[in-house]
Amino acid sequence: MFSVKSVNEVFEIIEKNFKGYQLECETIEINYAVGRICGESVVSAEDIPGFNRSSVDGYAVMASDTFGSSDSCPAQLKLAGEIKMGEEADVYLLKGEAIYVPTGGQIPRNADAVVMIEYTDNFDDGFIYINKSVAPGNNLVFKGDDIKSGNAVIKPGTRIRPQDIGALAALGVTHISVKRRVKVGIVSTGDEIVDIKNKPEGSEVRDINSYFLHAGIVEYGCEPVMYGICEDDFHKIKCKVDLALKECDIILISGGSSVGLKDQTMKVINSLGLPGVLVHGIAVKPGKPTILGKIDHKAVVGLPGHPAAAYIVFKVFVLKLIDAFNDSKSIGSSVIRAKMAHNYPSNNGREEFVTVRLEASHDGFLAHPLFGKSGLISLVSQADGFLRIGRECEGIEEGKDVEVILL
Amino acid sequence: MFSVKSVNEVFEIIEKNFKGYQLECETIEINYAVGRICGESVVSAEDIPGFNRSSVDGYAVMASDTFGSSDSCPAQLKLAGEIKMGEEADVYLLKGEAIYVPTGGQIPRNADAVVMIEYTDNFDDGFIYINKSVAPGNNLVFKGDDIKSGNAVIKPGTRIRPQDIGALAALGVTHISVKRRVKVGIVSTGDEIVDIKNKPEGSEVRDINSYFLHAGIVEYGCEPVMYGICEDDFHKIKCKVDLALKECDIILISGGSSVGLKDQTMKVINSLGLPGVLVHGIAVKPGKPTILGKIDHKAVVGLPGHPAAAYIVFKVFVLKLIDAFNDSKSIGSSVIRAKMAHNYPSNNGREEFVTVRLEASHDGFLAHPLFGKSGLISLVSQADGFLRIGRECEGIEEGKDVEVILL
Repeated sequence: MFSVKSVNEVFEIIEKNFKGYQLECETIEINYAVGRICGESVVSAEDIPGFNRSSVDGYAVMASDTFGSSDSCPAQLKLAGEIKMGEEADVYLLKGEAIYVPTGGQIPRNADAVVMIEYTDNFDDGFIYINKSVAPGNNLVFKGDDIKSGNAVIKPGTRIRPQDIGALAALGVTHISVKRRVKVGIVSTGDEIVDIKNKPEGSEVRDINSYFLHAGIVEYGCEPVMYGICEDDFHKIKCKVDLALKECDIILISGGSSVGLKDQTMKVINSLGLPGVLVHGIAVKPGKPTILGKIDHKAVVGLPGHPAAAYIVFKVFVLKLIDAFNDSKSIGSSVIRAKMAHNYPSNNGREEFVTVRLEASHDGFLAHPLFGKSGLISLVSQADGFLRIGRECEGIEEGKDVEVILL
Repeated sequence: MFSVKSVNEVFEIIEKNFKGYQLECETIEINYAVGRICGESVVSAEDIPGFNRSSVDGYAVMASDTFGSSDSCPAQLKLAGEIKMGEEADVYLLKGEAIYVPTGGQIPRNADAVVMIEYTDNFDDGFIYINKSVAPGNNLVFKGDDIKSGNAVIKPGTRIRPQDIGALAALGVTHISVKRRVKVGIVSTGDEIVDIKNKPEGSEVRDINSYFLHAGIVEYGCEPVMYGICEDDFHKIKCKVDLALKECDIILISGGSSVGLKDQTMKVINSLGLPGVLVHGIAVKPGKPTILGKIDHKAVVGLPGHPAAAYIVFKVFVLKLIDAFNDSKSIGSSVIRAKMAHNYPSNNGREEFVTVRLEASHDGFLAHPLFGKSGLISLVSQADGFLRIGRECEGIEEGKDVEVILL
């Protein structure tokens, strides 16, 4: 028999069962890589910068020549030339000399510091007057200070950010190996569900879940595959899920929320392969009827039928599952601090995810819990985020600081 | 003359000058709409749900028939039928009757509550025994409870989220009007800059900024246009920026960081139209040499040359500018709370953005400030985020709670 699992137990089951899934890699241009998951380490083949460089506009000097200098007693150094941007500084600086270097320019040999132009005077008498001393290394970036040859600049599993692409560009890396996108199949079930292109009759309802799941999958950098709507029939559902298993890595079964349909999702998962159902019920509100199964190395998730519940389960558990498939760690969800705008009672022995609307106030954000019957899409479409209330907590008082996970 | 502006003054200048920019709209399928900016309100043409619906599996009843019922004294109601999923409930419930309804099923006329199946017994004697009373409205979702006909479900300027697409699907809306993507041109300048496909010689450096700006623009849902690298020559830069102004909404001039080049960016902006340069210098570290100009209704930004500074200015100011063009309000950046891992002194009379690396600890995240010379890409490529230190603040002590804006 299955016992209902806690949120953290489900996270552990996801880690244990799906981490290390093999996704093939493909090589793409770095201009298309943002948001993709790095497939192979990129190791720097050179030092960046490749030469000692000035970080200011000024004069390259030997620092010791400037010691003791001040406005009233400037050091007088011979102006021995100028380095131009992009040029190789193929000159030696001699003691008592200064050479002009622009920001980013190469430092002449023997120079060990740069004096900012603001602290110098040039009276066109062939000398530069230094009004402030510098220590060795001042205003310099040394060869390899930014990236050292042999260091990994990006590791497998990293979700590639613009600044990672900056580091790759710095190394002249034009292409990168990324994991292929995780394919997520969506199977919608239920006799009452009709596609949004059709007009519902009687008590039929439109297939909301397929569409927001599609959007959520795209937003998370994965590839959605929609398998349409399936009648509430064991063999038909099994047939669709079987096809989806051949084409996808993760299959989401969504739509039906009646007791009978929940049992069918479970039967379908167990009929398709081993180990079958891993989680049957999560101690969380909303989301209790969630099912998680494993067939060979692939995952099948039975989502609650109510759109708001399905969406929160998607955000909390399915994204975690995708992270496991990608073998990537997200630093965490986007979180906003807010103050609770009203009391919110919660005393049901299971963790609760409460959707909230945020209101900007002079004192930061106020979080208004959205009260509403379960099953309403407006509970999430009007929400800016949600907050977690632990199973031991009896609710949250007005004015209390809370962390809102953005939706 | 221009005086250096504070961060908030620059935000105000952006709002005042660029809000209300006219972006044409296009109509697309909702499956492609996630992350796009809504162009026109969508008003509900119907009530959702379109009928009174049960939110549980159970028996539709007249609540008054259940008053006073308990395990020891159940109410006995005549089983008068069953509503099937998706079917129209074209029946009247009479006093003393119960009709089975599945979750999501339509309620028969006259019924005003549903008793969950868990609180009933069925001994196959033609009656249902109710062990718990219900109040009118219990376990029901009324017509229009979710979305009322005539209400706007999404407004112009909203960045479309998966749950918004759910609300559109609920209404049978298959297409939506979105603003076209803001086009952002990137002009890289500087004699020392070479494309990443070429090997730098002498003290040349690769064009890092164009690539991470491209990625950042894509990530924010805009359309980047790369204009390549331009020599440090007034006429050549002017010619490129002029072309970019014809094709784009916002132009970023990046690369050169020498004093001469900064002046040229300013001259170029002022030579191309009115009102010209609005901001010349921001009281922030890094990012001081940032320039913001306006030519007709378009924006031109001169970014600092150092990659780390350019990236932070992009994240803080350019994304704000894009929001103004889209007339959209982001709820805020992604923020993580952390504790400062070391003392960080800051006492320079201008606001400071400090890049940090986050480390997970038993007590939440620790923020490690990244120390390093300005101009290093590794200051941002190794960073998970940054924190803001106000201009009056003399630094942050170890152990203090901080809010890290994720990069």
